[in-house]
Amino acid sequence: MSELLINSEKGHLTASQRVPAIARPFVSERAAKTLDLVEKFVEEECIPADEVYVRQIGETTQQRFTSHPPIVEDLKARAKELGLWNLFLPRNHFKEGAGFSNLEYGLMAEYLGKSRTASEATNCAAPDTGNMEVLAKYGTPEQKKRWLEPLLEGKIRSGFLMTEPQVASSDATNIEMRIERDGDSYVLNGSKWWSSGIGDPRCEIYIVLGKTAPSHPDKYKQQSVILVPHSTPGITIHRMLSVFGYDDAPHGHGHVTFTNVRVPASNMVLSEGDGFKIIQGRLGPGRIHHAMRSIGAAEKALEWFLARINDPRKKPFGEMLHKHGIMLDRVARSRIEIDAARLAVCNAAITIDESDAKGALKEIAEVKVLVPDVNLKVIDRAIQAYGGAGVSQDTPLASMYGNGRTMRIVDGPDEVHLLQLGRNENKRGGAHKRRIEAQRAKGEELCRKYGVEVKDPLFLGRSTGEGKSKL
Amino acid sequence: MSELLINSEKGHLTASQRVPAIARPFVSERAAKTLDLVEKFVEEECIPADEVYVRQIGETTQQRFTSHPPIVEDLKARAKELGLWNLFLPRNHFKEGAGFSNLEYGLMAEYLGKSRTASEATNCAAPDTGNMEVLAKYGTPEQKKRWLEPLLEGKIRSGFLMTEPQVASSDATNIEMRIERDGDSYVLNGSKWWSSGIGDPRCEIYIVLGKTAPSHPDKYKQQSVILVPHSTPGITIHRMLSVFGYDDAPHGHGHVTFTNVRVPASNMVLSEGDGFKIIQGRLGPGRIHHAMRSIGAAEKALEWFLARINDPRKKPFGEMLHKHGIMLDRVARSRIEIDAARLAVCNAAITIDESDAKGALKEIAEVKVLVPDVNLKVIDRAIQAYGGAGVSQDTPLASMYGNGRTMRIVDGPDEVHLLQLGRNENKRGGAHKRRIEAQRAKGEELCRKYGVEVKDPLFLGRSTGEGKSKL
Amino acid sequence: MSELLINSEKGHLTASQRVPAIARPFVSERAAKTLDLVEKFVEEECIPADEVYVRQIGETTQQRFTSHPPIVEDLKARAKELGLWNLFLPRNHFKEGAGFSNLEYGLMAEYLGKSRTASEATNCAAPDTGNMEVLAKYGTPEQKKRWLEPLLEGKIRSGFLMTEPQVASSDATNIEMRIERDGDSYVLNGSKWWSSGIGDPRCEIYIVLGKTAPSHPDKYKQQSVILVPHSTPGITIHRMLSVFGYDDAPHGHGHVTFTNVRVPASNMVLSEGDGFKIIQGRLGPGRIHHAMRSIGAAEKALEWFLARINDPRKKPFGEMLHKHGIMLDRVARSRIEIDAARLAVCNAAITIDESDAKGALKEIAEVKVLVPDVNLKVIDRAIQAYGGAGVSQDTPLASMYGNGRTMRIVDGPDEVHLLQLGRNENKRGGAHKRRIEAQRAKGEELCRKYGVEVKDPLFLGRSTGEGKSKL
Amino acid sequence: MSELLINSEKGHLTASQRVPAIARPFVSERAAKTLDLVEKFVEEECIPADEVYVRQIGETTQQRFTSHPPIVEDLKARAKELGLWNLFLPRNHFKEGAGFSNLEYGLMAEYLGKSRTASEATNCAAPDTGNMEVLAKYGTPEQKKRWLEPLLEGKIRSGFLMTEPQVASSDATNIEMRIERDGDSYVLNGSKWWSSGIGDPRCEIYIVLGKTAPSHPDKYKQQSVILVPHSTPGITIHRMLSVFGYDDAPHGHGHVTFTNVRVPASNMVLSEGDGFKIIQGRLGPGRIHHAMRSIGAAEKALEWFLARINDPRKKPFGEMLHKHGIMLDRVARSRIEIDAARLAVCNAAITIDESDAKGALKEIAEVKVLVPDVNLKVIDRAIQAYGGAGVSQDTPLASMYGNGRTMRIVDGPDEVHLLQLGRNENKRGGAHKRRIEAQRAKGEELCRKYGVEVKDPLFLGRSTGEGKSKL
Repeated sequence: MSELLINSEKGHLTASQRVPAIARPFVSERAAKTLDLVEKFVEEECIPADEVYVRQIGETTQQRFTSHPPIVEDLKARAKELGLWNLFLPRNHFKEGAGFSNLEYGLMAEYLGKSRTASEATNCAAPDTGNMEVLAKYGTPEQKKRWLEPLLEGKIRSGFLMTEPQVASSDATNIEMRIERDGDSYVLNGSKWWSSGIGDPRCEIYIVLGKTAPSHPDKYKQQSVILVPHSTPGITIHRMLSVFGYDDAPHGHGHVTFTNVRVPASNMVLSEGDGFKIIQGRLGPGRIHHAMRSIGAAEKALEWFLARINDPRKKPFGEMLHKHGIMLDRVARSRIEIDAARLAVCNAAITIDESDAKGALKEIAEVKVLVPDVNLKVIDRAIQAYGGAGVSQDTPLASMYGNGRTMRIVDGPDEVHLLQLGRNENKRGGAHKRRIEAQRAKGEELCRKYGVEVKDPLFLGRSTGEGKSKL
Repeated sequence: MSELLINSEKGHLTASQRVPAIARPFVSERAAKTLDLVEKFVEEECIPADEVYVRQIGETTQQRFTSHPPIVEDLKARAKELGLWNLFLPRNHFKEGAGFSNLEYGLMAEYLGKSRTASEATNCAAPDTGNMEVLAKYGTPEQKKRWLEPLLEGKIRSGFLMTEPQVASSDATNIEMRIERDGDSYVLNGSKWWSSGIGDPRCEIYIVLGKTAPSHPDKYKQQSVILVPHSTPGITIHRMLSVFGYDDAPHGHGHVTFTNVRVPASNMVLSEGDGFKIIQGRLGPGRIHHAMRSIGAAEKALEWFLARINDPRKKPFGEMLHKHGIMLDRVARSRIEIDAARLAVCNAAITIDESDAKGALKEIAEVKVLVPDVNLKVIDRAIQAYGGAGVSQDTPLASMYGNGRTMRIVDGPDEVHLLQLGRNENKRGGAHKRRIEAQRAKGEELCRKYGVEVKDPLFLGRSTGEGKSKL
Repeated sequence: MSELLINSEKGHLTASQRVPAIARPFVSERAAKTLDLVEKFVEEECIPADEVYVRQIGETTQQRFTSHPPIVEDLKARAKELGLWNLFLPRNHFKEGAGFSNLEYGLMAEYLGKSRTASEATNCAAPDTGNMEVLAKYGTPEQKKRWLEPLLEGKIRSGFLMTEPQVASSDATNIEMRIERDGDSYVLNGSKWWSSGIGDPRCEIYIVLGKTAPSHPDKYKQQSVILVPHSTPGITIHRMLSVFGYDDAPHGHGHVTFTNVRVPASNMVLSEGDGFKIIQGRLGPGRIHHAMRSIGAAEKALEWFLARINDPRKKPFGEMLHKHGIMLDRVARSRIEIDAARLAVCNAAITIDESDAKGALKEIAEVKVLVPDVNLKVIDRAIQAYGGAGVSQDTPLASMYGNGRTMRIVDGPDEVHLLQLGRNENKRGGAHKRRIEAQRAKGEELCRKYGVEVKDPLFLGRSTGEGKSKL
Repeated sequence: MSELLINSEKGHLTASQRVPAIARPFVSERAAKTLDLVEKFVEEECIPADEVYVRQIGETTQQRFTSHPPIVEDLKARAKELGLWNLFLPRNHFKEGAGFSNLEYGLMAEYLGKSRTASEATNCAAPDTGNMEVLAKYGTPEQKKRWLEPLLEGKIRSGFLMTEPQVASSDATNIEMRIERDGDSYVLNGSKWWSSGIGDPRCEIYIVLGKTAPSHPDKYKQQSVILVPHSTPGITIHRMLSVFGYDDAPHGHGHVTFTNVRVPASNMVLSEGDGFKIIQGRLGPGRIHHAMRSIGAAEKALEWFLARINDPRKKPFGEMLHKHGIMLDRVARSRIEIDAARLAVCNAAITIDESDAKGALKEIAEVKVLVPDVNLKVIDRAIQAYGGAGVSQDTPLASMYGNGRTMRIVDGPDEVHLLQLGRNENKRGGAHKRRIEAQRAKGEELCRKYGVEVKDPLFLGRSTGEGKSKL
């Protein structure tokens, strides 16, 4: 790349210079350098490549889900050359990755989120990332050799099959896919949808959640995770689901049925009954990745918004859009919301780094709800500034909106996280009530001590004071 | 205090244990200890004392603005004894304070914000804090001796007179108060309102912003700051302003006229024309203080909210309120919003600590808009859960709402900050436009290189492509 | 009144000319004339009188709740002279009133809602209106003679005692006030608060809801309504409740205890067990009155907002506020929201007129939730435009906000109405589901008929289609 | 149709029975009957036919924009048979239509808005409706014969070409398409996009807005409207625009260039310079049509929402969704918002009926902003209840969202209408200011008359009162 676009403007701050002050102590010098390199790679190579990518996929469904856009392989080669490979595997748990913390990778993921090709180019695309984490953490040497190694090298891709069409599967205890032991094999029967990644012709392995013990009294011990090669007989992909009219080919979201799908018993991950635990651990960092990519999407939307309001050809009522106060108001609110949301994600990532996903439950849940909401608001404002161009293929905004909208649903809808956050917060409700009552009792005692009449009876949680006379 | 209320519950985390992971590197061990002590002092001593305080003030306007509730002096003595005094003066600028950073004090201010008496008890109440900063930074030895010393000791209080009723004074260049040199004196004429603190009978000195050179071609050199003893002839306090029916006595918000008010020339702070600079520097940390106290108010509102939904006497439709999902939803949203807002304030405080208020303009403005919005939303939800009790004197919520509502107005209304943030953000608009266009141009170039047809002409900022045939 | 202020401006449309086109067929010529007269009376006489009224009330609590501002009696005389008296009693139920429909009175109530004194001046103030309706509808000749006549003449006032501090009394089945028969008397014991009107020295009669049969198996038959003269021994008014710092004196909101309060058995309204029915009927039209007064408040706030943005002294950034697009945006949104809300209230009033309150349950509940939300949004925007003046006593906005905020609580909080609306709407859920399924089934049948392949299985409520091969 | 689906449920109210009470005086008996028939046709025939329609269109762009789904013609025949044809042409302006008022047709349009095929089936589809109005109102006998007749018979379709890609064409004075007189012809040069309807192979005539006199001093006299047959040489359709990934084939939104496109001078509509007037008149009723179809879409979304929360297979946390209070809360809010919005549209339609589009400018603009906002909120809530199914092709919700989102943009974005509404409202700002000041002056006068001290000086628009002493 001869010309460094992103440096060509005076006053440009690099990605590492824009890291919020509060997050800087957590970013090593090496990570800062890599972060700047990621930004440069994304802005200068991946985003332009996106234009080629969407056109190399093809038009008919048949084409779109059998294509492998050649430009991706070129980008992957380039990313490896730059040392931008497997950035996501956190250093405190895995030796296989690039050696960054969740916070450090999170900052990079923000930039990956600005391009359609960047995540795959750096081998940091979902669902491979979470799948590689599962294999790296729990896989047997054989499983690792057969599946993790080619995944880490970017030679194959993988699918993640959890959600089911016929139940409220955001609650994983509702899962119905059966996994039954039969001799040296397990036999799977059931349906899955929103099966991420199964559209890709390079997708060779599915990580499947099902139930080995549907009657186990502990409902968190009923599930197991098992590895299913994509070519196993009995698998039917019925169709690919669209998201607001976008099919996300070739990756895609599949609707698939398993009919007597038989795999060797050695394909079980950990042991029978470990499924729930494996899935829970998998989702924590994945939510951080999603969240930071969404932050990147929101930043991109804001950049497009700013570009539009500085377009000299667009002058409603005789003034460029940036002269209209309502536009600057929206820009400012977007900036405020994005910056606060980014801090929340950084804090969640650090909390994971300092303990683990379980120790960061609250922080992850907060981010899961907050970030998509901010992202959608910012994109929607940018769309509105563009008018017709905003909803069409002429900007990336409409497809970003579609993608952003799914983030309020995938890995559990907002409502599930809000309810759990609310319940958790409510655990301290009794303690707050008791403290407030004790403070009020002490307040009354002090009133007596200071000889002050307590005219207003204090009611919280106690019986009504008995007055003696009319006012 | 015999009983430690706040520790009486199992699972209670102290204030320092609740500091977000991302902020911890910035908190010294000494600050962490002080923070826990502040929490304990506020929860166990100040909040109960609030009940006495509001009753010691009296009923008629005359009483309320001449009273000095005795319990405050007892709390001040106690705070000094505990070492909780002048916590606010940041260590990197002042030797007179307790030696904490803006971040460290900010974390403490959150707890001060939960009580009506705590800020004054620790000598951290506005407008004294900002006034003391001005005097410490710019005062002459004589000014310091006469005013700063007794302020630092909590012996007197001070007023801050900037806002004027007849102009849009959120824009300080509109100020009209005249300050004219006359021999060895300055003579002041004009009106001020929302003059914080002038209701207090202990308020002895006013810091006044006015214009010494209203025709100066540089509109930021017209203003000066001058010290005016409260007893100077020519000062008329017409009345005290209320906020949603609350008079905030004895402190109060005064409406005052200066008619030929004469003070010695030595009362000028710095030199003529330095007023704008002094005021700007004063407002930065003050906004952080306000913001963190608002975070504390929001936390308090959430605690009251949680107390209410665990009140066994309140069972609409036969179920306690915490069994109603809508309540947990609101609790969860409040938790998410407060936590993100706190991170934004912490980041702004750290940015000030690492440069100064000017280097943190964006971060401070963001917080100035974000925090009051969050605070009001949380208080409003708590009010709704309490019903009639929520709007009445039986909870602190309604008066907290009134106070919180002013935070969208004081030190510049939301709109001013949003406009400035928007304009500032817009400065990068041209660069974003150029980068996006360059990326698109490169994308087209890549399309040609890869032999891909560009079906959709790309329009941003360029003329329409000329097609040749109908579709 | 020498000068007709409201007609002094060119282009002014009178109240009857501003009635929405859709509502006009429901407004008689007489009502249109009265409506214009109401507007004139309110704008020219009542609103200026408000300034006197608030000052005649006094300062201390003792003064404020024993005062009877003389200007009110002058306004009442004037209103009678103009024929603006007892406008509220709907013609299709009562012969005692001015003979208007709920819709017609609703349009007038909008204007009454713009002034503090207008409702009382026209004898249309709550809780007297609802109390008079109860007495007119259900009272014995003796009850009418003793209480209704002087109320209709404006000689006395009345209180309404329903809400109780210790339970969730928005659900009237939770009421605990005991009413026990003892010989020829009933004896009342219990507590009430938010007892509207009992602060007024002219308040002579309380309408009290309590339980005569707390163990009755039908929980809607446990309640009774009884008349209690204010001077009956055993009544203690502990204190008056404030609303955001406003005490609403002399009317007020009382907290009161009944200890062995004995009244003649003839004071029972209808029979024992009729309480729930009486209260329900009372609340319907009352909610319309509240709603239309709130619409008036919102209009008033918008007028003040518009006045502010045309104040030539207020020029932030060198431009009057109406030149700032964000202000016009808020004005426009306010106009849209108020106009839609008014239509909803008019439709609810007409629905009552054409059936009764029970037949308009849905419409009343909708208005109960919608209108306060709109009103608060509009007032809040106006406050923000005024800055400090907006929250203080210099505009009516802050006290209007306090009052408006209670409207989300009184007569059942938002949540209760939303839940009931939701449940009611949900009754058609099954029918919707069946219809959608039938439509889809028919769609598939049509597909077969037209020889079209159904690629996407249709899942709603049916089992997954079994595909046979990979995509 | 053997089975009447929509009547199969007990308690079902027909469309005419659901007309809000306030709108009933405006609905004739004939209209009420037709309304019920429209509902039945849409629910029982059109909605099932939608499933066929979307599959008959095809897959590739080439197929999709050359197809004419046969089922549409069958539906058209059926609609004619039922007398449901050309319902849209308002009786007070046109003799060619079915003879309903704007309000009556508006109520029918709500049901048409629930189906993809219903508008076309009844010959009430945009942009044909507006185009037919233009031709009926302004066309010469020859223009009518050639274009209006086949349009009224549903034999051909038409396009409307106003929006241009390179300018802010929501302000029609910015239009750049040149229309130049050359002998007996006009020659057109320029670009258009969002050209509705030009994708349809049956689209034979374009109604084009351009400038005949770009230098005319009156900027509302520069525009003309001209008729351009689709096959005229020089027209290039570059591509079809998508909306959130949906192409709306075969109708579509085209991007088209005119290069020396020559048409006979007799194709001019009215005279040169009448373009702006023609367009303005065209948009008024069209906005009502859009708005009522959006109300129908919102109702449909709410029906799907209700169907979902009654799906016994979906039980997060062990309870069907309708047992989760948050869902009923959203249902209730949707009901409130839809009902208020519908009233606003009805009132706007009646205002047009009673004057014309110009006399209903405010009402139309209000509806233009309010309805899409409500529609999007309701659809979004329904999507969230469906989770993955909500964003995919398995429900109509995602495509309805895409369509609904464009309604905030087409025919002028929200911001344009809000600004004009705000400016219009602001015209009364001075009058409000003067009235408030006069009321305050009179209030002070009354205070003096009643001997009441005016403690708080009254400031609005006047100079500060001069007090004499400290408080």
